[in-house]
Amino acid sequence: MLQDSPADDLPLCDVQARQDTRNMPIDKVGVKRIRHPIVVKDRSEGSQRTIATVNMYVNLPHQFKGTHMSRFLEVLAEHDGAISVENLPDLLGKIQQRLNAEEAHIDLEFPYFISKKAPVSGVPGLLDYDVRFTGVLSGDRYELTLCVTVPVTSLCPCSKEISDYGAHNQRSQVTVTLRCKKFIWVEEVIQLVERNASCELYAILKRPDEKYVTERAYDHPKFVEDIVRGLAVDLDEDERVLWYTVESENFESIHNHSAYAFIEGRKER
Amino acid sequence: MLQDSPADDLPLCDVQARQDTRNMPIDKVGVKRIRHPIVVKDRSEGSQRTIATVNMYVNLPHQFKGTHMSRFLEVLAEHDGAISVENLPDLLGKIQQRLNAEEAHIDLEFPYFISKKAPVSGVPGLLDYDVRFTGVLSGDRYELTLCVTVPVTSLCPCSKEISDYGAHNQRSQVTVTLRCKKFIWVEEVIQLVERNASCELYAILKRPDEKYVTERAYDHPKFVEDIVRGLAVDLDEDERVLWYTVESENFESIHNHSAYAFIEGRKER
Amino acid sequence: MLQDSPADDLPLCDVQARQDTRNMPIDKVGVKRIRHPIVVKDRSEGSQRTIATVNMYVNLPHQFKGTHMSRFLEVLAEHDGAISVENLPDLLGKIQQRLNAEEAHIDLEFPYFISKKAPVSGVPGLLDYDVRFTGVLSGDRYELTLCVTVPVTSLCPCSKEISDYGAHNQRSQVTVTLRCKKFIWVEEVIQLVERNASCELYAILKRPDEKYVTERAYDHPKFVEDIVRGLAVDLDEDERVLWYTVESENFESIHNHSAYAFIEGRKER
Amino acid sequence: MLQDSPADDLPLCDVQARQDTRNMPIDKVGVKRIRHPIVVKDRSEGSQRTIATVNMYVNLPHQFKGTHMSRFLEVLAEHDGAISVENLPDLLGKIQQRLNAEEAHIDLEFPYFISKKAPVSGVPGLLDYDVRFTGVLSGDRYELTLCVTVPVTSLCPCSKEISDYGAHNQRSQVTVTLRCKKFIWVEEVIQLVERNASCELYAILKRPDEKYVTERAYDHPKFVEDIVRGLAVDLDEDERVLWYTVESENFESIHNHSAYAFIEGRKER
Repeated sequence: MLQDSPADDLPLCDVQARQDTRNMPIDKVGVKRIRHPIVVKDRSEGSQRTIATVNMYVNLPHQFKGTHMSRFLEVLAEHDGAISVENLPDLLGKIQQRLNAEEAHIDLEFPYFISKKAPVSGVPGLLDYDVRFTGVLSGDRYELTLCVTVPVTSLCPCSKEISDYGAHNQRSQVTVTLRCKKFIWVEEVIQLVERNASCELYAILKRPDEKYVTERAYDHPKFVEDIVRGLAVDLDEDERVLWYTVESENFESIHNHSAYAFIEGRKER
Repeated sequence: MLQDSPADDLPLCDVQARQDTRNMPIDKVGVKRIRHPIVVKDRSEGSQRTIATVNMYVNLPHQFKGTHMSRFLEVLAEHDGAISVENLPDLLGKIQQRLNAEEAHIDLEFPYFISKKAPVSGVPGLLDYDVRFTGVLSGDRYELTLCVTVPVTSLCPCSKEISDYGAHNQRSQVTVTLRCKKFIWVEEVIQLVERNASCELYAILKRPDEKYVTERAYDHPKFVEDIVRGLAVDLDEDERVLWYTVESENFESIHNHSAYAFIEGRKER
Repeated sequence: MLQDSPADDLPLCDVQARQDTRNMPIDKVGVKRIRHPIVVKDRSEGSQRTIATVNMYVNLPHQFKGTHMSRFLEVLAEHDGAISVENLPDLLGKIQQRLNAEEAHIDLEFPYFISKKAPVSGVPGLLDYDVRFTGVLSGDRYELTLCVTVPVTSLCPCSKEISDYGAHNQRSQVTVTLRCKKFIWVEEVIQLVERNASCELYAILKRPDEKYVTERAYDHPKFVEDIVRGLAVDLDEDERVLWYTVESENFESIHNHSAYAFIEGRKER
Repeated sequence: MLQDSPADDLPLCDVQARQDTRNMPIDKVGVKRIRHPIVVKDRSEGSQRTIATVNMYVNLPHQFKGTHMSRFLEVLAEHDGAISVENLPDLLGKIQQRLNAEEAHIDLEFPYFISKKAPVSGVPGLLDYDVRFTGVLSGDRYELTLCVTVPVTSLCPCSKEISDYGAHNQRSQVTVTLRCKKFIWVEEVIQLVERNASCELYAILKRPDEKYVTERAYDHPKFVEDIVRGLAVDLDEDERVLWYTVESENFESIHNHSAYAFIEGRKER
């Protein structure tokens, strides 16, 4: 793609800057699947370094033939090692300016780590979660969407009730996507999800911990429906949350397919 | 998950049929990532057999604790070997009925094959495309969404113009998603995309064919913006199309990231 | 890549046929990630149609600059709709001949379906397995390697024993790779794996079936070590098997990582 | 899996420590797909932080029923934030000791970043590479295997020669796996690969840079065969290298499949 920038004053023609006559504006144009180190604010440690997959887009008015792809990477490079939720609006403002765009869009997807103590032995270990921040700046209106995927244990209430002993259980992935008017920590969303599962996961479990999580899950059976409903009730009650969706995918231990449930919050409806 | 069905008259309690008191309806609940053989209507051959990944959901009113997951699979099994676009409404009707649901939803994603002749030698070969059908039946209102991903060659106009010789080119994935009032063949969507690329792909190319596609791409340079704009103009003109999105991801041969563009059709806006 | 074939008598030069002076033979050169419909022999139905991902390679002597890639696809196209284990040697012989190669190699990876009846209700449903055939023809010596991945339930013996009730269980993927002197059905390998798991999986389970599989798994707890050991013992006893590896990956329901075990058969050691 | 550790003196039975009577030793048993932050030695910066996917295994003698999975995670946690190539032998020694194993095995796969200046404008940008370290400690014999995947541009010599203008080119992934007697920097392997491609990739290219890489690739056409042969010649000449494999996968811009070549070094043969 065109590799021009304001700095260039070379004789090479600027193909992208030419007129386009099709009268067709483009909603999003930019770069996708860039891997880049970032720093994320962390409630316990202050901040943590991780690796993000980054997408950056702008809108393109109908009259311009192309956008200037290299400028996205230049803005990213200028923020090198210091990209975080806090400065996303600033970064998006630079993209608007450098690409002469009305709207700028960024997605950051990355693994996020939390040190958790095993429930009985207290042995600490790092658990990994998938987090995505999506920031959109339209003119001077900024909107951030937070998405957190939390792995948990789900244990089937039906299997437990109809069986003389045991109950099938499995790893589930619960995803919460939300927009809020007041800052919400990734850690808060994770705790909300873990409270609504049959049991939370740990990196390290000693024998007494394994006994605990086994019995904890058996004592708290949850259908995929229960997980999303419990979360939806909690998110409805949280006044900081403006809009949300919750979904759970249970990788059934008795089938080769998943059970799935999805709720979109009705606050904005 | 609950494994009940109308056929059952066993003493085992029906946990899912119980009341739920959280007053929280669920938008979608069901089964995901089922692999299943299907038959798809094929313009040249009549039909072709392929393997789909299937998701099936219903909505769940607030008063019911759970849905009956096994019934989705039973409906799928009853259509075994004969699932196609034509009978999706019938299949969705059965799901509505068997799960006592107002709304039924199905996704079918599968590879679709077309035999293409090489442009000069005429040697035939199969090219594979990714297709997704999404059918939703709400009450008696049926809506089908067709999504086709077409791999093509894109050649960069800027690289061609500023370079004394050569031009970087790469494989791109162009995805068209649409809803229409009159039937549109998958083959028609594929041809529309291939006409808007620098060159279409082939499974087999003999030497004179390779000369042809190399020069064809060089003679038809396209930015990622050009590909989506050309498609949007064509889809705006097609009166059968009610709504569409077009996107192109170019796996840049000079970068380790992609160039990307997206347009949502404005017909319904 | 070069797009020449014996049929060509065009004036276009054959770059690949030229001498290479680096004195460096190539072990494998060819085409990868081709999706293609195939027919596979099926013990109950006679045959089933599925979609394979195909890799095809030959060795290249040091003196030749390149191989003729299009010829692989031509051989594949000639077998269109009739590729199966039975005619792999024939297909590889054609590749040897058409590419003037000493050694020809093919991989076929595909989903394979078996209709299974639920253990109590007897309701039938299709379960999907991943199968890979690798065929190598060196001169006139043919070797076939069969690889089958079977999803099963594993239930943890430690969790069961130390807990007052319940036991964590999860979906596991067990992979058996083998070479044999006498034909072995894919179905035989699948049954061997399912017998060594805590419980096998089903597409459809009614309530009495769910009770059965829950209690079956609880009555047959297996560590990842138990699964691979049981399989290794069985494969050691099967005189048709010349060489094998077995591995199991358990997607732990109490962790966000997998437990894993691997054994290579010692028959050939 | 069993969650015991030396620290435990709880009354809970140690199921794994029991005798196994099947007389079947296990080659590898352990944990897989753990995501964990690591620090990697970096030639220009001293070190860089990244996120690894980690597998850890030990061998298990025939007489023991199971291994103690939690101990792998404990050893990993003890090295938290300080895992690097330098201390892999130390980490593996701890695993041997804590799991009473003869052999310990670790895989670390992670994205690795290098700051590169654009070839003409000199604008700096980060390029990402995939690196895997595999360390095995058998008794006191340590062996490290380094694997680096480098994305590059490949331009087809045949397409260039037979066409009046242009030449198809694409992104290729070149993978070098090697064992050496003297330390080799990841950066050295990357440079070796980039020298053997039609052109190397950059994160940021301004217009004069794009002109440069376009013409550079056109001036250095390479078949997939040329890339692996050039690398094999260079690795044969490097006396530090004891064993290697090289492979290249070209994501052909004129096909929907890849071209592929593979050479195993003959030093140890």
